[in-house]
Amino acid sequence: MRYPPPIQKLIEELTRLPGIGPRSAERIVFHLLKAPPSDCAQLAGALVELRKRILHCSVCYSVAESDPCPICSDKKRDPHTLCVVERPSDMMAVEKTGSYRGLYHLLMGKIAPLDGVGPDSLRIEELLQRVKKGGVREVVIATSSDVEGEATAIYLAGALKRFPVKVTRIAHGIPMGSSLDFNDAVTISKAFEGRTLM
Amino acid sequence: MRYPPPIQKLIEELTRLPGIGPRSAERIVFHLLKAPPSDCAQLAGALVELRKRILHCSVCYSVAESDPCPICSDKKRDPHTLCVVERPSDMMAVEKTGSYRGLYHLLMGKIAPLDGVGPDSLRIEELLQRVKKGGVREVVIATSSDVEGEATAIYLAGALKRFPVKVTRIAHGIPMGSSLDFNDAVTISKAFEGRTLM
Repeated sequence: MRYPPPIQKLIEELTRLPGIGPRSAERIVFHLLKAPPSDCAQLAGALVELRKRILHCSVCYSVAESDPCPICSDKKRDPHTLCVVERPSDMMAVEKTGSYRGLYHLLMGKIAPLDGVGPDSLRIEELLQRVKKGGVREVVIATSSDVEGEATAIYLAGALKRFPVKVTRIAHGIPMGSSLDFNDAVTISKAFEGRTLM
Repeated sequence: MRYPPPIQKLIEELTRLPGIGPRSAERIVFHLLKAPPSDCAQLAGALVELRKRILHCSVCYSVAESDPCPICSDKKRDPHTLCVVERPSDMMAVEKTGSYRGLYHLLMGKIAPLDGVGPDSLRIEELLQRVKKGGVREVVIATSSDVEGEATAIYLAGALKRFPVKVTRIAHGIPMGSSLDFNDAVTISKAFEGRTLM
């Protein structure tokens, strides 16, 4: 005995999403059956709108409703500095600081050979073309600080060597508001390596 | 700076579902933006179909595409035995055993005063009406074995006393395939209480 087909079908569709197993899918379905019918319709509408209205900016590859995206077409931003991040959510995190005024380049991932992601699956060639065109003076590499993010940073630094640009990496060290003994050995040694004059 | 409205909207809609926080919602949205556009459309379609095609059986309150549901209208099942469960997923669990041939009654929850769920919010009155109509010889109470499920079982047993039916509770004890010392004290004492002659 199985659930009626419409329930079974929605459970299957939900289970294909990241982080949702058969149990949570079941829970969501029965939540939706109890909630007002408009909830289902709104969620369905939002899903359709997503694919209809969201596109990738052809300059930085961020997600936006217009191409080029609002950041790339903002004349007040510094076009000489490019910040390289992995994903749109990383870009949002940098934007939230309000302290970066340059442009972005989204790789849409990081080099991860074990997951079958090589340099060719990322927007690296597009980054090199952007730098080649000229106008960029500094590339700030802000990939994550895990093994794959570090490997991606090293790969990018190597690939950018042939262009007359400054390549920098964001600092790694003790996060603000944290006590020294709460940090792991690698972070602390990175903090020592990257110490600055004061 | 926030995500473009279609992304923000879908994140908000997803966050309203049980078990999905802002982080998982973001992950799902970017998964969908990477996946083929048909994935979004299929999920949206499944959501719309769910509310269009699924209804509650007016006899047992289970979810089905027809009313009465396939189980209630199955002439080969024993109409003299009713199994009372909390939710459709509990009914499915009993059905999977293949050993129960009676009918069901779904309460659609359990008595949980702390969550504001009293006997009136459940399908208890409907159960009493069903028993009152006659034809039922045994009511097997299969609510869960937590505090609320036990309270619900005791409430039901009391309410059913005025009818000439046998009221039984499913056995509690050591689950099959489990070693004694892996079980908690309450379960073990329940197993002793419910011991049977062999």
